[in-house]
Amino acid sequence: MNSSRRDFLRKTSIAGAGLAIVPALSKAKSKEPAKAHGAKYMGDFIAPKLETVKCAFIGVGARGAGHARQLAAIEGTEVVAICDLYQDLADRSAKSCKENGKEQRHNNIKTYTGGKNEWKKMLKETKPDAVFISTPWKLHAPMAIEAMKQGAHAFVEVPLAVTLQEMWDIVDASEKTGKHCMMMENVNYGRDELLYLNMCRQGVIGELLHGEAAYIHELRGQMNQVERGTGSWRTYHYANRNGNLYPTHGLGPVAQYMNLGRGEDNFKFLNSFSSPAKGRSLFAAKNFDSNHKWNKLDYKGGDINTSIIKTTLGRTIMIQWDETSPRPYSRHNLIQGTKGTLTGFPTRVALEGGVEGGPEHHHSWAQGEQLAAIYEKYEHPLYTRLGELAKKMGGHGGMDFIMRYRIIECLRKGQPMDQNIYEGCFWSAVGPLSETSVAQNGAPQEFPDFTRGKWKNTKALAIVG
Amino acid sequence: MNSSRRDFLRKTSIAGAGLAIVPALSKAKSKEPAKAHGAKYMGDFIAPKLETVKCAFIGVGARGAGHARQLAAIEGTEVVAICDLYQDLADRSAKSCKENGKEQRHNNIKTYTGGKNEWKKMLKETKPDAVFISTPWKLHAPMAIEAMKQGAHAFVEVPLAVTLQEMWDIVDASEKTGKHCMMMENVNYGRDELLYLNMCRQGVIGELLHGEAAYIHELRGQMNQVERGTGSWRTYHYANRNGNLYPTHGLGPVAQYMNLGRGEDNFKFLNSFSSPAKGRSLFAAKNFDSNHKWNKLDYKGGDINTSIIKTTLGRTIMIQWDETSPRPYSRHNLIQGTKGTLTGFPTRVALEGGVEGGPEHHHSWAQGEQLAAIYEKYEHPLYTRLGELAKKMGGHGGMDFIMRYRIIECLRKGQPMDQNIYEGCFWSAVGPLSETSVAQNGAPQEFPDFTRGKWKNTKALAIVG
Repeated sequence: MNSSRRDFLRKTSIAGAGLAIVPALSKAKSKEPAKAHGAKYMGDFIAPKLETVKCAFIGVGARGAGHARQLAAIEGTEVVAICDLYQDLADRSAKSCKENGKEQRHNNIKTYTGGKNEWKKMLKETKPDAVFISTPWKLHAPMAIEAMKQGAHAFVEVPLAVTLQEMWDIVDASEKTGKHCMMMENVNYGRDELLYLNMCRQGVIGELLHGEAAYIHELRGQMNQVERGTGSWRTYHYANRNGNLYPTHGLGPVAQYMNLGRGEDNFKFLNSFSSPAKGRSLFAAKNFDSNHKWNKLDYKGGDINTSIIKTTLGRTIMIQWDETSPRPYSRHNLIQGTKGTLTGFPTRVALEGGVEGGPEHHHSWAQGEQLAAIYEKYEHPLYTRLGELAKKMGGHGGMDFIMRYRIIECLRKGQPMDQNIYEGCFWSAVGPLSETSVAQNGAPQEFPDFTRGKWKNTKALAIVG
Repeated sequence: MNSSRRDFLRKTSIAGAGLAIVPALSKAKSKEPAKAHGAKYMGDFIAPKLETVKCAFIGVGARGAGHARQLAAIEGTEVVAICDLYQDLADRSAKSCKENGKEQRHNNIKTYTGGKNEWKKMLKETKPDAVFISTPWKLHAPMAIEAMKQGAHAFVEVPLAVTLQEMWDIVDASEKTGKHCMMMENVNYGRDELLYLNMCRQGVIGELLHGEAAYIHELRGQMNQVERGTGSWRTYHYANRNGNLYPTHGLGPVAQYMNLGRGEDNFKFLNSFSSPAKGRSLFAAKNFDSNHKWNKLDYKGGDINTSIIKTTLGRTIMIQWDETSPRPYSRHNLIQGTKGTLTGFPTRVALEGGVEGGPEHHHSWAQGEQLAAIYEKYEHPLYTRLGELAKKMGGHGGMDFIMRYRIIECLRKGQPMDQNIYEGCFWSAVGPLSETSVAQNGAPQEFPDFTRGKWKNTKALAIVG
């Protein structure tokens, strides 16, 4: 019995609770591959600098098209190839890249379309430095792994992968090839998320004890996308899986506030709970013929999932996911410490004794104009540098642009990625772990340690100006 | 193996998760007393009508004084006795009762003070019809049980009791004596809580799937009450117990929206998670001498507890408790159904397609003046009848008065209590169950069925006008 298991059971005050997590534990262990010969830990990895970053794209639908258009405008990029199932989407993105790229940098864009394996041909023929993958979730892992094997850094939409085995395979491939694999969690680059990261690092709210993160976004309308678009494939996830399938937008920022997987603390275990599944079948019955394919699915995914993460230090993080219920959009997030609480949707701050120009913390949250002094004092240097340009470029209020800019900057200047491969795995692991926990009446599921113990020596994310 | 256990394990997809709840299950079973001979089920119990309700009070500190003052003003009451450790508090309440009571109804109030057992003498000598108990939590059970044995209906502050055994003993005493024992959850009488109850019953938000309930109230300042006052005894609960010790304000209303324990559904199991415990010891170190008693305690209670209840129908309820962290007061509550979501702090409503005069549900919550039509259409008849008077009388915005008025009204008109004894037990059971779950790394704890299966035939709370 290895030490982490022994340690965990020691902390478990009765055998029952210990046994409840054996399946998760053993599953996680069984999935841990032997470290490849000469494999390198990628936590703080710095890749050789690139003068120009040759970029290729797999999937240029709603999300990928935005990546291509903005990356084409960033200094030091050359778009070399675009792959999509649909020629019209590939052409549309190639055109927007040319229009956005200064100095004719993107005049030799090859497009690959039609076949399901065109992306492999693209990797072989165009040898890009960086591949941006915005495809259905199940394709993330095979595409990222093959991209790294072909010598490219992989940048992957959220979640990084669907199963724990896929995550281990991605870790293994990255450590073997020495290529980055970054999950592109854009919310970590939001103005308020950067502000709160900066405040947490400066100790403004004391010792961090509890976080909350939600992705509540009614997307039943996507079920109208029957042939093309997100609904055409994501609907099957709602039907066949029951858990928190989309945790990273909320969890990413909270995890970096707490330095999870980066020296200070790490993910320990998760318990997950889903409500009954009602909304999707009601929507299908209301909006499609009785013999429509959406009316032939048995929707298993509970309308709202609530999960709790416990960290190695015993901190708690509550994560919710609901893309079904009729309620307004919210990325509710909260970080609570011994000296204050910071939260979003709406942006509100409570500091012990009160915020300068704001109310005393017992009475009400400081928000709106009362926060001017907070922004003034704690604005993240990265936002100070890029915020204005980001707002002009757009993309979820600029967070998308700052993320894309930082990716290219890190590759050109030789800096570690802001989100390392292990963070992408830990954040995405909530998906499969929550499915198992829900199926086991909320029994605790231990997180695999994708760093194999190296997280203890991994540096906190640097506050880059 | 009894059927509920077998049924639970059947639903439990792996042995581990099943085993994890054996301790809680067996503990609950062992605490279930054999039903007393001739014992009566009290779920819908109606006691013989009382023309005048002779009221006595045990504990007239901050909370009990309010009960006495307002009950004295309600038609059909006679205050016969007041008991408190402190003579000055008893005298203050006797005076306020006389001042508030019309027609000299309260001119023979006996006061019992000084000794720890004066309350027993009071029960024997004055034979009240109803006893209102507002004492430290650990005294609730023995006082309520003795009051019923002495022929009085017992009305008890929240939580009803501290341990599951105490709750079973209270159930047993009530069923034996045929006396009511109602936990006085005032929040169920709030205007918005009554409004939402009415909307849920009318199916406005469809099928109910998920609820949320929090009690977030920074009360570290109570630690300054060293000799008298809540802090003088409650501080020891924070120090010696780790869980959600104060769940009923948030849970009570949500439980009645969902008809838990009343025919439709019931409490099944609970998982509980606490953050590290930091705030109380920091507060003590900052505000008291190093040799002060508050600096000699080892504070075990996590600053914030997050618990999840699963119901028999698989619905989820998230409950939080935090009386330590520096953040504003919130009784965050939420009830979510297939057609809409109702929430508080602030009061916000989202209905599929939008609220009359409000925004479409995708865009934002309807709140403030946008809710005029909602109040107009769905105001609870009880609030329509008593709301204006309640606001004048006061007490947490009037909810206290409506509760006190209803208690007397039910006793005089011969109606079942709005909150039956089993509801008081289910809601309070979150305390001890959460302590066990936290100690077992969040392992699920099954709720005892305090109704012994009778909940299936218990009527929903009537919407009394």
